[in-house]
Amino acid sequence: MSGYEKRRSKIYDYMAQENIVLVMIEDFENSRDPAVRWLSGQPGDALLFLSVGRKSLLVPWDINMAMLYAQADSVIPYTEFERRPIKALKSAAELLKIPAGSRIEIPPSTPYPQFLKYVEELSGFDVICRENGIWPELEKGRAVKDDEELKIYRKVSALTCAITDLVEKHVRSGKLKTETDIALFIDAEGRKRGCEGTGFETLAAGPERSFGIHAFPAYTGGAFGGQGLSILDYGIKYAGYTSDVTLTFARGPLSKQQERMLSLTEKAYAIALSMAGPGVSAKEIAIAVDTHFAKAKKIMPHGLGHGIGLEAHEAPAVRSRADNEWVLEPGMVFTLEPGLYDSVHGGCRLENDILITETGAEVLTNSRIIRL
Amino acid sequence: MSGYEKRRSKIYDYMAQENIVLVMIEDFENSRDPAVRWLSGQPGDALLFLSVGRKSLLVPWDINMAMLYAQADSVIPYTEFERRPIKALKSAAELLKIPAGSRIEIPPSTPYPQFLKYVEELSGFDVICRENGIWPELEKGRAVKDDEELKIYRKVSALTCAITDLVEKHVRSGKLKTETDIALFIDAEGRKRGCEGTGFETLAAGPERSFGIHAFPAYTGGAFGGQGLSILDYGIKYAGYTSDVTLTFARGPLSKQQERMLSLTEKAYAIALSMAGPGVSAKEIAIAVDTHFAKAKKIMPHGLGHGIGLEAHEAPAVRSRADNEWVLEPGMVFTLEPGLYDSVHGGCRLENDILITETGAEVLTNSRIIRL
Repeated sequence: MSGYEKRRSKIYDYMAQENIVLVMIEDFENSRDPAVRWLSGQPGDALLFLSVGRKSLLVPWDINMAMLYAQADSVIPYTEFERRPIKALKSAAELLKIPAGSRIEIPPSTPYPQFLKYVEELSGFDVICRENGIWPELEKGRAVKDDEELKIYRKVSALTCAITDLVEKHVRSGKLKTETDIALFIDAEGRKRGCEGTGFETLAAGPERSFGIHAFPAYTGGAFGGQGLSILDYGIKYAGYTSDVTLTFARGPLSKQQERMLSLTEKAYAIALSMAGPGVSAKEIAIAVDTHFAKAKKIMPHGLGHGIGLEAHEAPAVRSRADNEWVLEPGMVFTLEPGLYDSVHGGCRLENDILITETGAEVLTNSRIIRL
Repeated sequence: MSGYEKRRSKIYDYMAQENIVLVMIEDFENSRDPAVRWLSGQPGDALLFLSVGRKSLLVPWDINMAMLYAQADSVIPYTEFERRPIKALKSAAELLKIPAGSRIEIPPSTPYPQFLKYVEELSGFDVICRENGIWPELEKGRAVKDDEELKIYRKVSALTCAITDLVEKHVRSGKLKTETDIALFIDAEGRKRGCEGTGFETLAAGPERSFGIHAFPAYTGGAFGGQGLSILDYGIKYAGYTSDVTLTFARGPLSKQQERMLSLTEKAYAIALSMAGPGVSAKEIAIAVDTHFAKAKKIMPHGLGHGIGLEAHEAPAVRSRADNEWVLEPGMVFTLEPGLYDSVHGGCRLENDILITETGAEVLTNSRIIRL
């Protein structure tokens, strides 16, 4: 069995248990769902149908791409269905011989007005759209990386570490001077090493712009690494999987407040890392960091971290919100990224990628606060 | 009145007419809606509430960014509402003194299971989620660019033309050799000129990869512009608005089939452009191009074009699907982009940005098929 078949197999089992006869997963421009790639290898722009009879049908927008990348029992171009998901679903139900009255599950992201149309056009079936069905299974499945995925994480982490070292070297030497210099250097170095690109738009913000959690624009022709605090947040994507790290470059002389922001952030990171391990509640870690900042009368305006994988933000959530029920498990890969932001003194953030092992937590990347 | 206030004013009028007392527009990672930027200037990651009492309330994730960019009657950070849209909506209804029982419209992209929660938690109101309400108004509003937007389109088009000329020059001279060279050159040249970045990930595909409609990965370290057909599809984003052009580079000797693909594509573009003008059905143009290709026993596997603006794909649709009812109007800016793809001979596409004027159509960009 290929890795994709193994993953599909678990979903088939769940479908049988839940009496779901057909599932439609959709990955298009306005509703991205990397579960299609996770289950078939198709990098994007496709529908994937799974039947409880253990058959998969891929409906790609670009049939040539599917021939190169995808593994599914059958492949039919989206043009055959006028590029309409409802039409494709009706045909899939026919082709896969789904009995009338069966339960068909569609994505929980299906907009309410669309849902009404599915129900109408598939009146011979029981169309289900719910948050607590197949999708949490997919989310949980993706959150715990399998051996094939961990091999990729070893690779993408090593590439990230190498690029981070190069960036530090070239910022110190003055070869990389502007935000754009750094962002494009990372992109080119990544692709040179076989990456698909960056995992998200690189954020490079010099001291004047680092107060923004996510600087806008993401990078400009402006200077990076001057006096004060500069933030660099980037990830590279290898075989679909992204890293996600943030470095802060601090050039003195720094104000007392800036020094304090740096040490509070480093301390927050140390607290979080010391707590991370199998069986630990992700929320508890985030609460400990919030408490640490609160003691210093500071607020971190974003979550402490998040899972990474085929998406830059996926499960598990690592934040303090009451509804966060994630418990860390071996194979989970996520970020820890405490940060503080001040409209006068600028911002700092320290972010690394963490793998939960059987016995603890391994830091996969080598991001740090760099004092210039 | 600022440009944003003028746009909001039209929406308030529509709300009054439709008896909608409050609208929530959402622009976050998994449900992007540039209408927030269009109506307030906030570049992203925010909720925007409009009340029929002609008041706007912006709820940004990053308050520092809002201070720099946004114009709204009031601004409250998202953290005040635990970064939960339902909580923000309830508070907005209170703050804006919305009477019990009022009609509140939420985005038609609201997932069905979420919609049920809104209805439950806002049980004192009539929560509406529909495709034929405020959102088509926003879509229509955004599809016809106003004077401020057309000024930006003059600028972004001029920058795009200049960059296209530079790319041709440097590909001819051999300075830009690889797909990555070209993609990063465009990014750097754009940002140097004050752009926010590219409008989407640049697609640069050498002869071995140009058969893909959207090559994957978007660009690699591989060679560009060798013998055969290479495709370059890019856009730059200025003040929020993106251009979108595609050049094909053809280096001989070409096969008969390649020559035929090029001439059929150029002819398709000429047919489309000759038909474009105010009052014309967009579908009719796309049908004419489909017919032209069908006569040559070819199929174009994507739509003929699409509106551009704050998004790379927006209204009007320019495709032949039966449900496309868009009629071209002065102020609309869209692409025409016929193309053909063959797994052996490669692909070609020609795409320019078109502005509909009072009397006809103006080609804003200078993309072309370049014979090396």
